[in-house]
Amino acid sequence: MNVAFIGLGRMGHAMASRLVGEFDLVVFNRTPGRAQQLADAGARVADSVADACQGRDVVITMLADDAALTAVTLGAAGIRDSLTAGALHVAMGTHSVSAIRELTAAHRGHEQTLIAAPVLGRPDVAATGKLGVVAGGPSEAVRRCEPLFGLIATRTFHAGTEPASASAVKLANNFVLGCAIEAMGEAFSLVGKYDVPARLFYDVMVDGLFSAPAYRVYGDIIADEKYDRVGFTAELGLKDVNLMLAAGSVARVPLPSGNVYRDRLLGAIAHGEGELDWAVMARDQQRASGAA
Amino acid sequence: MNVAFIGLGRMGHAMASRLVGEFDLVVFNRTPGRAQQLADAGARVADSVADACQGRDVVITMLADDAALTAVTLGAAGIRDSLTAGALHVAMGTHSVSAIRELTAAHRGHEQTLIAAPVLGRPDVAATGKLGVVAGGPSEAVRRCEPLFGLIATRTFHAGTEPASASAVKLANNFVLGCAIEAMGEAFSLVGKYDVPARLFYDVMVDGLFSAPAYRVYGDIIADEKYDRVGFTAELGLKDVNLMLAAGSVARVPLPSGNVYRDRLLGAIAHGEGELDWAVMARDQQRASGAA
Amino acid sequence: MNVAFIGLGRMGHAMASRLVGEFDLVVFNRTPGRAQQLADAGARVADSVADACQGRDVVITMLADDAALTAVTLGAAGIRDSLTAGALHVAMGTHSVSAIRELTAAHRGHEQTLIAAPVLGRPDVAATGKLGVVAGGPSEAVRRCEPLFGLIATRTFHAGTEPASASAVKLANNFVLGCAIEAMGEAFSLVGKYDVPARLFYDVMVDGLFSAPAYRVYGDIIADEKYDRVGFTAELGLKDVNLMLAAGSVARVPLPSGNVYRDRLLGAIAHGEGELDWAVMARDQQRASGAA
Amino acid sequence: MNVAFIGLGRMGHAMASRLVGEFDLVVFNRTPGRAQQLADAGARVADSVADACQGRDVVITMLADDAALTAVTLGAAGIRDSLTAGALHVAMGTHSVSAIRELTAAHRGHEQTLIAAPVLGRPDVAATGKLGVVAGGPSEAVRRCEPLFGLIATRTFHAGTEPASASAVKLANNFVLGCAIEAMGEAFSLVGKYDVPARLFYDVMVDGLFSAPAYRVYGDIIADEKYDRVGFTAELGLKDVNLMLAAGSVARVPLPSGNVYRDRLLGAIAHGEGELDWAVMARDQQRASGAA
Repeated sequence: MNVAFIGLGRMGHAMASRLVGEFDLVVFNRTPGRAQQLADAGARVADSVADACQGRDVVITMLADDAALTAVTLGAAGIRDSLTAGALHVAMGTHSVSAIRELTAAHRGHEQTLIAAPVLGRPDVAATGKLGVVAGGPSEAVRRCEPLFGLIATRTFHAGTEPASASAVKLANNFVLGCAIEAMGEAFSLVGKYDVPARLFYDVMVDGLFSAPAYRVYGDIIADEKYDRVGFTAELGLKDVNLMLAAGSVARVPLPSGNVYRDRLLGAIAHGEGELDWAVMARDQQRASGAA
Repeated sequence: MNVAFIGLGRMGHAMASRLVGEFDLVVFNRTPGRAQQLADAGARVADSVADACQGRDVVITMLADDAALTAVTLGAAGIRDSLTAGALHVAMGTHSVSAIRELTAAHRGHEQTLIAAPVLGRPDVAATGKLGVVAGGPSEAVRRCEPLFGLIATRTFHAGTEPASASAVKLANNFVLGCAIEAMGEAFSLVGKYDVPARLFYDVMVDGLFSAPAYRVYGDIIADEKYDRVGFTAELGLKDVNLMLAAGSVARVPLPSGNVYRDRLLGAIAHGEGELDWAVMARDQQRASGAA
Repeated sequence: MNVAFIGLGRMGHAMASRLVGEFDLVVFNRTPGRAQQLADAGARVADSVADACQGRDVVITMLADDAALTAVTLGAAGIRDSLTAGALHVAMGTHSVSAIRELTAAHRGHEQTLIAAPVLGRPDVAATGKLGVVAGGPSEAVRRCEPLFGLIATRTFHAGTEPASASAVKLANNFVLGCAIEAMGEAFSLVGKYDVPARLFYDVMVDGLFSAPAYRVYGDIIADEKYDRVGFTAELGLKDVNLMLAAGSVARVPLPSGNVYRDRLLGAIAHGEGELDWAVMARDQQRASGAA
Repeated sequence: MNVAFIGLGRMGHAMASRLVGEFDLVVFNRTPGRAQQLADAGARVADSVADACQGRDVVITMLADDAALTAVTLGAAGIRDSLTAGALHVAMGTHSVSAIRELTAAHRGHEQTLIAAPVLGRPDVAATGKLGVVAGGPSEAVRRCEPLFGLIATRTFHAGTEPASASAVKLANNFVLGCAIEAMGEAFSLVGKYDVPARLFYDVMVDGLFSAPAYRVYGDIIADEKYDRVGFTAELGLKDVNLMLAAGSVARVPLPSGNVYRDRLLGAIAHGEGELDWAVMARDQQRASGAA
């Protein structure tokens, strides 16, 4: 199996690094920057999307948003026009269900197959091959990708035969996290007004029902107000929850908890905190209750 | 130290069972029912609140709600009038911050001390002495109770020197749980509309960020829709979140995520599901999205 | 028909002034202050609740909250114990459905009849006899009160034969107003970010779909930010919406728009604005969007 | 001044009918249908967008959504490419602030001027020339359009010199209406549970604070549950509130009341009520409270 990898941001680069040497790999990034390191390790650096796709069995994309994915896929000399029939496009970024559905149909019209395979985890986890992958698409096609996923992730979840199912799972998982952060923000602000030390409440939570990374990591950030230790920004959180709410709008599912934390993120961003960690929604909650 | 224990519901009985034999114990319940078993084990069964309090160093209450606690404490021949000066009243039920503050002042006026010490965990956990205790009150008084708490709980958290602090922590911990259940309900309903099997989404959650009892237990109930396996009813959940929202109102803290799940509980109860497990809010979410 | 009037705050005094001279009137207030003016006009000033109720056909109460109403009615030497069988108690304050239901039953047990008859309008309107009255209670009893209502109000609405129905109508009418103020606050904050003058948006609203007092009065306050021209404080607004949400909780009706504006009021009060006009929720909205 | 009018749906046709005979008018619609009547009255029917724009001083568009507006304006042989420098494009549909900003810049690059001039009112009002117009754009350009607006509307509001300001005003005005409908839905469902006849509550509202068309028209629909008398569908309401929430997202303004009624619309549509009048959100509220 020969592979193309398009999109070498922090995440894409870490993932491509896992593949180089294991597969015949071509890489491409709009700006050349990070490609060199992969070239040193044996990848060929393509000079265009079309060049990257030429004769490949699989092209992986790891792009920042729907606009980039759609442009690279459907634009002139894009993936759709450059891939051969029978080939796979594995979209591993976080995308809207609508964009994934549009590309699913577009590839189908060219006898190509789209797989949506967003990942769970951050760049440092990607570098060690310990991500999770949530794959959506025809079972046979997902099976063909398993050797790829196996290098990147410790576990692959097959969400369903429609690629959009994988988008829904990824967005929903992030959503559950956003809700947990918001809930912690509200709870910390309440107990604070009753003179409870933040760290005491943190201990109660993670000692019991909430002894999980979501609460340990974000509870810790909130208890110490270290919002400048940024894993995922408020701006990215907003983009993400907007995708989730759009998925709800398409499927006619009200998501009231999503509304709540979206409003917190808007508040934080309105106060100039868009580049802080998205746990900063706890500070916006403090502000709303007159305590920040 | 001699002890009185008032309130022998399922939880109170399990807790009192841990103390009998270890302390000179008097027990009292409005209806005699469960007292016999404790009497067989060596407790004396009082025939009134006043009788129970007579000459005791500590009286523990484990009552269902504020009304019961206030009546038993401030009513005629109640705890306040029956306890000697210097004695402790340890209120271990889940109560409003307002009721706790009122009783704190009432006891203070009689040179008695109130400790609020709500517990974390359910009757089966109580029976094995593995609850958590969140204690609020003067440090010295809390210290005096440690031998008691040590028989009931594996860990005691000292929330602060004001009893109401402990109420706030207990309510906030339940609140974080309610928010998590609501978030799961929303997420499951969303992915369901995209043909994702509930169990698949469950696996994604608990395999990663949410590998904690809150998500395992309640995710499991929701995925299998086994709302009749009741741990904590929707009606109790509503009572609880109303206490939390009242705590927010008193302290001027908006709790928008609490509003969301309170509305879900109201919807479930309005549909006759008040005696099902409070995870039934996930079904109300299904209904709201036309899928139940 | 002889009448007692209990509760001579600004509103009660204005209403009682409409009755003096028209009926044999006894008045009572916890603190004597305002009674003198009514005495000068011919009313007898009672020296206790019991004295006021003695031999009266009708006793009207205009009290600030549930606690006052319940104490005056059910307390020792209160209205229930002092009124003769067959007499009416007309509660004209804004009260919870729960308190009204409790008093309905209490009076029934003494062969007395409770009518809930909250009023629409402010003290200056009351002084001119142009309030609205929403009456709940048995039709025959409401009919007996019509001569009274006719002096106070231009229109009486009969909400139903249960007194609590009138409470529900009054709370719901205030609620619709609170929602309208909140909606305006949100709308003004949005158009302001797009450089639209507040007064322009005001004109669009009241020129068209919203040419009503609610929008003229409160739109005007918001457009000019004159929150210190106080008609109804944020603190009272909070008390009021809490009564409405409690009515929803009792009847299992989610009121999500009520949650929204309650949170705005909490935010405003948390920022020290509790004694400003409740339209100050628009400023809290400004704050939430980083514009105040 | 010679004029082109593009988009002859119900609203566009009614508006164009007011202009024909008063101006040298060319009309165009994607599907020919309604053009004939205008041709009979003296308009020329163009056979393409480019043909319609040829040599015109002003081109008016009245299109259903952003996608149509953007395609007709920026597409091949579209308005931008066909209008001469110095000409005006007056976009009178309801559009997102983002689309309007994009087109503002696009026209500016061709020395053309965009005016956003959404209208207030429905087709029957348009036919009598009694709409409101909210115009955004350079003052001089708006002034040039006054003769046009004067035939369509009784009043023109100048929202600001940026076209997007007019979009914001139009969306915000609809938003205030959506909030009012939602508030009524909640209030009616509450009073209904207390046995209050819907018509009684309607009378209380419109007799007092809410004596305005918004409450008369929609209160009437809700009281009689005549959701099949459709003025504006739930689907259109959803599209509209999504535009408003997007405007809030762009400007970092949380709009919690908008979230509430969007969720109601989603619920209604999920239950197959998308083509009923958007007042059907009151029925979704009934459902949520177990009363429908």
